[in-house]
Amino acid sequence: MTETRVREFRPTIYHCTVGPHEPVLRLQPGETVVTWCIDAAGKDEQGEQISLAQLAGPWGAQQNIANPLTGPFFVEGAEPGDALAVRIAQIDLTRDWAWSANRDYFGFFSTEELYGPTTFTPPQWSPAEQRDFRWELDTDQGVGRLALAHSRQEQVEIPLHPFLGCLGVAPEHGETRTTMTPGRHGGNMDCPVVHAGVTAYLPVFVPGGLLVMGDCHAAQGDGELCGVALEVPCQVRFTVDVVKPGHIRWPRVEDEEHIMTIGSVRPLSAAYAAAHVELINWLVDDYGFDRFEALQVLSQVGSARIGNVVDPNYSVVARFPKCYLPNL
Amino acid sequence: MTETRVREFRPTIYHCTVGPHEPVLRLQPGETVVTWCIDAAGKDEQGEQISLAQLAGPWGAQQNIANPLTGPFFVEGAEPGDALAVRIAQIDLTRDWAWSANRDYFGFFSTEELYGPTTFTPPQWSPAEQRDFRWELDTDQGVGRLALAHSRQEQVEIPLHPFLGCLGVAPEHGETRTTMTPGRHGGNMDCPVVHAGVTAYLPVFVPGGLLVMGDCHAAQGDGELCGVALEVPCQVRFTVDVVKPGHIRWPRVEDEEHIMTIGSVRPLSAAYAAAHVELINWLVDDYGFDRFEALQVLSQVGSARIGNVVDPNYSVVARFPKCYLPNL
Amino acid sequence: MTETRVREFRPTIYHCTVGPHEPVLRLQPGETVVTWCIDAAGKDEQGEQISLAQLAGPWGAQQNIANPLTGPFFVEGAEPGDALAVRIAQIDLTRDWAWSANRDYFGFFSTEELYGPTTFTPPQWSPAEQRDFRWELDTDQGVGRLALAHSRQEQVEIPLHPFLGCLGVAPEHGETRTTMTPGRHGGNMDCPVVHAGVTAYLPVFVPGGLLVMGDCHAAQGDGELCGVALEVPCQVRFTVDVVKPGHIRWPRVEDEEHIMTIGSVRPLSAAYAAAHVELINWLVDDYGFDRFEALQVLSQVGSARIGNVVDPNYSVVARFPKCYLPNL
Amino acid sequence: MTETRVREFRPTIYHCTVGPHEPVLRLQPGETVVTWCIDAAGKDEQGEQISLAQLAGPWGAQQNIANPLTGPFFVEGAEPGDALAVRIAQIDLTRDWAWSANRDYFGFFSTEELYGPTTFTPPQWSPAEQRDFRWELDTDQGVGRLALAHSRQEQVEIPLHPFLGCLGVAPEHGETRTTMTPGRHGGNMDCPVVHAGVTAYLPVFVPGGLLVMGDCHAAQGDGELCGVALEVPCQVRFTVDVVKPGHIRWPRVEDEEHIMTIGSVRPLSAAYAAAHVELINWLVDDYGFDRFEALQVLSQVGSARIGNVVDPNYSVVARFPKCYLPNL
Repeated sequence: MTETRVREFRPTIYHCTVGPHEPVLRLQPGETVVTWCIDAAGKDEQGEQISLAQLAGPWGAQQNIANPLTGPFFVEGAEPGDALAVRIAQIDLTRDWAWSANRDYFGFFSTEELYGPTTFTPPQWSPAEQRDFRWELDTDQGVGRLALAHSRQEQVEIPLHPFLGCLGVAPEHGETRTTMTPGRHGGNMDCPVVHAGVTAYLPVFVPGGLLVMGDCHAAQGDGELCGVALEVPCQVRFTVDVVKPGHIRWPRVEDEEHIMTIGSVRPLSAAYAAAHVELINWLVDDYGFDRFEALQVLSQVGSARIGNVVDPNYSVVARFPKCYLPNL
Repeated sequence: MTETRVREFRPTIYHCTVGPHEPVLRLQPGETVVTWCIDAAGKDEQGEQISLAQLAGPWGAQQNIANPLTGPFFVEGAEPGDALAVRIAQIDLTRDWAWSANRDYFGFFSTEELYGPTTFTPPQWSPAEQRDFRWELDTDQGVGRLALAHSRQEQVEIPLHPFLGCLGVAPEHGETRTTMTPGRHGGNMDCPVVHAGVTAYLPVFVPGGLLVMGDCHAAQGDGELCGVALEVPCQVRFTVDVVKPGHIRWPRVEDEEHIMTIGSVRPLSAAYAAAHVELINWLVDDYGFDRFEALQVLSQVGSARIGNVVDPNYSVVARFPKCYLPNL
Repeated sequence: MTETRVREFRPTIYHCTVGPHEPVLRLQPGETVVTWCIDAAGKDEQGEQISLAQLAGPWGAQQNIANPLTGPFFVEGAEPGDALAVRIAQIDLTRDWAWSANRDYFGFFSTEELYGPTTFTPPQWSPAEQRDFRWELDTDQGVGRLALAHSRQEQVEIPLHPFLGCLGVAPEHGETRTTMTPGRHGGNMDCPVVHAGVTAYLPVFVPGGLLVMGDCHAAQGDGELCGVALEVPCQVRFTVDVVKPGHIRWPRVEDEEHIMTIGSVRPLSAAYAAAHVELINWLVDDYGFDRFEALQVLSQVGSARIGNVVDPNYSVVARFPKCYLPNL
Repeated sequence: MTETRVREFRPTIYHCTVGPHEPVLRLQPGETVVTWCIDAAGKDEQGEQISLAQLAGPWGAQQNIANPLTGPFFVEGAEPGDALAVRIAQIDLTRDWAWSANRDYFGFFSTEELYGPTTFTPPQWSPAEQRDFRWELDTDQGVGRLALAHSRQEQVEIPLHPFLGCLGVAPEHGETRTTMTPGRHGGNMDCPVVHAGVTAYLPVFVPGGLLVMGDCHAAQGDGELCGVALEVPCQVRFTVDVVKPGHIRWPRVEDEEHIMTIGSVRPLSAAYAAAHVELINWLVDDYGFDRFEALQVLSQVGSARIGNVVDPNYSVVARFPKCYLPNL
């Protein structure tokens, strides 16, 4: 992948759905882009929420603004069956605080989560306590601090590890999905492995792929338990390329140490399965493993990360250490 | 609901996605329509498959044709928050045979089903045996017959009970979903309770509602176990109206004996939950039940039907007998 | 199956676990027994709760009394690999009222149910309202009546359909399970199909099988939604026999109209799967169906009932109408 | 916790169930024990399988030998409601090879796994290829090596990280479970965090607790995907103590860096939930966190490990870094 030039793109509209929308920019394979993303609530660097006029599509107008994304970027030459290779060079936080929250209609312990995409309260349940949290971010030191008002200790200070909660392309089969939903097309995977320094591979389902990104998290635990991470806007620098790797059926990610696959589906065990089968396919197709030997070795050295258990599909990352790959 | 007039609509295009598509017809509340649906494979009354030119949207061109639907019908006055009331007066089969099949990539025992919307084979599995079945339909007697080539008995003859596998509206949040997918918008619920004589209520998410229908099944067991029912084209006569029932969150169905709700989500227990919470809401909101007394009575007299366990969301019907409703 | 004689057995102790316990009676194949069961809370015909001294095993002493069962009955000649055939001739209610309840620690909408066999409250949730319900039973007319204190109507009157919530044998692999738990050994299946007039087949895992029964329900809806049915004591008349049907892996039930199988496992889709695979095996092994033709016909004429979604394993009944079986 | 003395215990019998069995040894709180465990197939240091006479209980005689365990150890003074604290000082492998395998009746991709504890083949499936793997162990270098017969590379060499697949006590409610089954009592959790250097806390359900252990794994990936790890016998050195921490509802583990909880239940999301609620309870009860602040901080800094997705219950480890605990 060669960087041919760097383009800056400052978005003026954002999307709350991922689909075959009008591209905001056309990119050549190899091009590097610097762009900006607002946070999951549509708030910018000053904490101002964007106006509804800046939102494309119907979600925003009717509902809370959720994960408005930057893009889509049309990548020249990307055809269905190909994959986009997105090298994420840099993710810089552009605000010195992040918000998080506890909501009764969202998060792993909410009724919403347990009973699917609807809003109701079963007879036995009461609404949860609503809480808002503000994390102060010290990007120089790479830490975030939260004051604890009701606990024995007064604050916690944690290391930041910024990543893109959303990275995706237009879905298969002509679908348009909300930016809350992860799937084969990527989308709202909420997986911390999508950080600066990795290359993500996304299957292409429509001409140009139509890359979108956003929902930056300054930090997040496995599963995004309460449904909200450290939500921040950011500046992203990335390079796109088109690869023809055969049959990528779920997003793949590669860093220095691991090859990784991300399955997003319900229930959680199906996400685990999808990711691991995709990873076995990768080991067999690209690295010359016999299927059952791939299964055996992966069973002993594989590690898994639970991305999210709060979105319409759950996400699991399956990882295989590169040190066990053959020298090609 | 008053029938004002009857309109015939012969479709020339079909959709393999459900979304905010250009309506094929605008209906007044109270209007009755007679229309036609092709079968789940896009085959018509003569068994001819429609041409790809007759398919709107991208699915058909790239993939197998799956559940091409008739519509969408725009219902004047229907606004987000309302419900469409669709009285299904008649479903007439328009072919004297139905197809069914066993496929390794579809059905409850397939890998596809177990691991989400993708196509792969885990290391342990082998492709299943492919089978095609042709059921002869005797619509005068209302029975279907299948010759059994490999079993002890030579054939089975079963009663037909035609219903619409798909009945839906444009989804919420600006989504476009495939016609394989059921949800809050209805869609591919594959529930035998959607037969002639019932009234179905669908939540309206976009102006006009955008009603679609198709995927007629001449008969089907609970769950659609193998993934394929007795697939047939049909003629449908229905009347639409717009109602403002407050908060319908999932499709509702009413016949002489039951009020029913249909939840479609994964896993199966979540579909059971969604349907039952919706039904409790209905009992409380419209019939004056206390929430916990509704839960108690429903727990003792409710019955549930498993619609499908093969589509991207599973469907469960929750039923409450009308004889236990108060005289209003 | 020939009735050789009738024996009355009045229990003096009850079990809150199902396992290789000392039998209370040894039965010859073909023998008919009349016995008595107390209700799920250990209350008898007068509503008196049994003393802890009458409870065998540790559960009762430490915890609430739950489903104390009558038995175990040792059936002479029953060996691992065989099946017990239990013909339930009669179930007579022995009290003119039943209790039911809403509990925050039990039932489908409870936290207990959602997160496995433990007692805790996730941060978002509040305890549910506790309610007790008393149903008056008119066994002459076969109806139950519940006064509704808080709803628009003053009462509901429903038909009774008594059945055994628990019917089981000592489990496989040397396990002892609570009487709350259904499984391959039967147990607390809470399936209304276990009523008078049916023959139930249970796999034998230990010599004598060690049959237990109890937890009579005067009525119950599909799933036992709130976790409690119309709980009553009863008198049962049954006949046991030993059959050697080959490989029964899950309980089977037969009435005039259906052959049925009951799968009990989590999640709900696995219970659906277990029951249906067992039913296909039955069709293939005993009725000469080809596997794929059995799958096809079952897919079109099968019906499923959700027994419970509240016990440590969920139960699903799969049913195949006898009219489609070959004449043997 | 003070070591008072060290006792050696060489087992002569092993258990394939976990329950209220006759203890093999009575320990004082604070005592240190050195004992030996055979591997999951009942093979010892020379690779000899133990005789059936050495197996207590019925499982072994009827079935394959699975996870025969050492113990139970009765801990003096341990009463229901207490917890056993088990400090694992050392786990030494006692054989220079480990076995692993691919089986069609076991492992995440097997039919067994998908449809509960039974043995059957759905119509669509074929038996998997059976494979046996032998890993050579170099305990001096702490690595294992597997020759790959069918892949591009000839072998893999991986670091060993020995741990106890099984560590448990007699279950609650008077149950006896197989040694294949994890739960609130611990058991076959197959979690790599149970290694030398940690202290595990197990809830006590019966007098003496009745500690058992075994099923040593020399290495294993997250989930134990194929169902079999690097199976080895071992020598264990541990110290027991009795603590009264209030309400431990699931096993807890503590090392230098984390406090951890292990939930074992199906489906996988319920195991994730159980572990995280237990961890929140721990943070609130012992470390003075407010519930919602515990949820917020855990959501951002928690990590989760998937122990197993192959046993009758799935296991998830939830972890909270000790650096965010208050100084007590």
